[in-house]
Amino acid sequence: MKKKVTKNKSQRNISILVTNDDGIDAQGIAALVKELKKIATVTVVAPDKQQSAVGHAITMNYPLRVKEYYKNGKFFGYAVQGTPADCVKIAVRALLPEEPDLIVSGINHGSNTAISVIYSGTVSAATEGTVLGIPSIAVSLTTYKPSPDFSYAARIARKLSLLVLKQGLPRRTLLNVNVPALPKSEIKGVLVTKQSSALWNDTFDHRRDPGGVDYYWLTGVLDNPDTDITYDEAAIRQGYVSITPIHYDLTDYETYEVLQRWPIHTLK
Amino acid sequence: MKKKVTKNKSQRNISILVTNDDGIDAQGIAALVKELKKIATVTVVAPDKQQSAVGHAITMNYPLRVKEYYKNGKFFGYAVQGTPADCVKIAVRALLPEEPDLIVSGINHGSNTAISVIYSGTVSAATEGTVLGIPSIAVSLTTYKPSPDFSYAARIARKLSLLVLKQGLPRRTLLNVNVPALPKSEIKGVLVTKQSSALWNDTFDHRRDPGGVDYYWLTGVLDNPDTDITYDEAAIRQGYVSITPIHYDLTDYETYEVLQRWPIHTLK
Repeated sequence: MKKKVTKNKSQRNISILVTNDDGIDAQGIAALVKELKKIATVTVVAPDKQQSAVGHAITMNYPLRVKEYYKNGKFFGYAVQGTPADCVKIAVRALLPEEPDLIVSGINHGSNTAISVIYSGTVSAATEGTVLGIPSIAVSLTTYKPSPDFSYAARIARKLSLLVLKQGLPRRTLLNVNVPALPKSEIKGVLVTKQSSALWNDTFDHRRDPGGVDYYWLTGVLDNPDTDITYDEAAIRQGYVSITPIHYDLTDYETYEVLQRWPIHTLK
Repeated sequence: MKKKVTKNKSQRNISILVTNDDGIDAQGIAALVKELKKIATVTVVAPDKQQSAVGHAITMNYPLRVKEYYKNGKFFGYAVQGTPADCVKIAVRALLPEEPDLIVSGINHGSNTAISVIYSGTVSAATEGTVLGIPSIAVSLTTYKPSPDFSYAARIARKLSLLVLKQGLPRRTLLNVNVPALPKSEIKGVLVTKQSSALWNDTFDHRRDPGGVDYYWLTGVLDNPDTDITYDEAAIRQGYVSITPIHYDLTDYETYEVLQRWPIHTLK
């Protein structure tokens, strides 16, 4: 077992940093904050606008600006002109008086399973939290329908937050949680899963604008070879909440061994 | 051994797609193209402007535009209004008449080792190639000095391209190559390495603009705990070319086993 990041605090002193990639005004983050406030002091630091599919982008060539964001006349959090990873970095290193006990990113409107994990701003925010040494969770609701009900996913996020604070997480690991958009009665259970190898079958829709200039829209469908519910995508399709432990050590150790036998000395 | 992606073509029919994240007008891509043209038909599809630290961003909310880019009056390649990952997707799925045999991303101006791998546009372009089933390599020159000499790194890229075409790569694995900015005589050798766990120690420089509005600049140094040259960062610091096999299965299998013993059924 690797070294754990854990905190021993009484529940009422828990501090949670909340961020997302759909923007500070999204429904998913509002549902998450409402639920987490039942167990912790919550600080919101989130992008000022939608940042989906930004991957693990960080802003280095421009300065970051931060504004207080009010909702129905009440202070809701800090809106950052940047990416989800920027939000976590600036929250922990500049805005918060002390490190939060936990970071929760979401609730994303749409799934983050299989290969989508590498494109996901929601996941990258939680990854950044882990990089900074703070236990972190990414939560997504697996539907693209407008105005879905985030309340069940928010309750899962609350319960999992308490479990993570109790159990701790290994130093370089975060949890990527996907919740099917189903009523609680239709949820079959909660599974610990692996990242599916399913890929997007990308196509480009080639169009011409009114000025005669070509442009391309990315579109595509997820090819889904797995039916095995030990993988994230199959689990959510079959009605399970999926919890995947992921890390940011991208080394392919199997190929590392194979490459030792390549004639690489000839490259110099 | 996993399933390999390999091609059996005579050398003169090799086709290589070249991209980068520093932009199509960068010095590093010019040096790379010059060298790879000795062994292959090269097509350049690269961002129209600098895209460093974009991570694995893809463009979904805007259409992509593509322009022919000329250098000294000669056609050089296609400039895409998008990210490095966008360039690879659109090249393979819309612009090229057939799939390239290999994708080479770079040569990046600056290192992509340790945690920087997850922020890197250079690496994400090669990852996208791997996602599309094409053997892919990311190449970086580990200096931030202006106008460095990319020629030795370009020669390494050419030789490694031939080796990869001969040996093949596992289906989901790419090679992340970092070359020290040293004369060839001072390069100690070529090593297959693992991704270092070194992290950036981030700080924010808090300033106020002439209008009295706060802003923050990200800055920081890489904390470097490794001196072991089996890790990428230590290898380049000690004068070795570093080749790290990386993949995009982010599952933490060790923690996957640990989580099976958590009381996750209580979450539902």
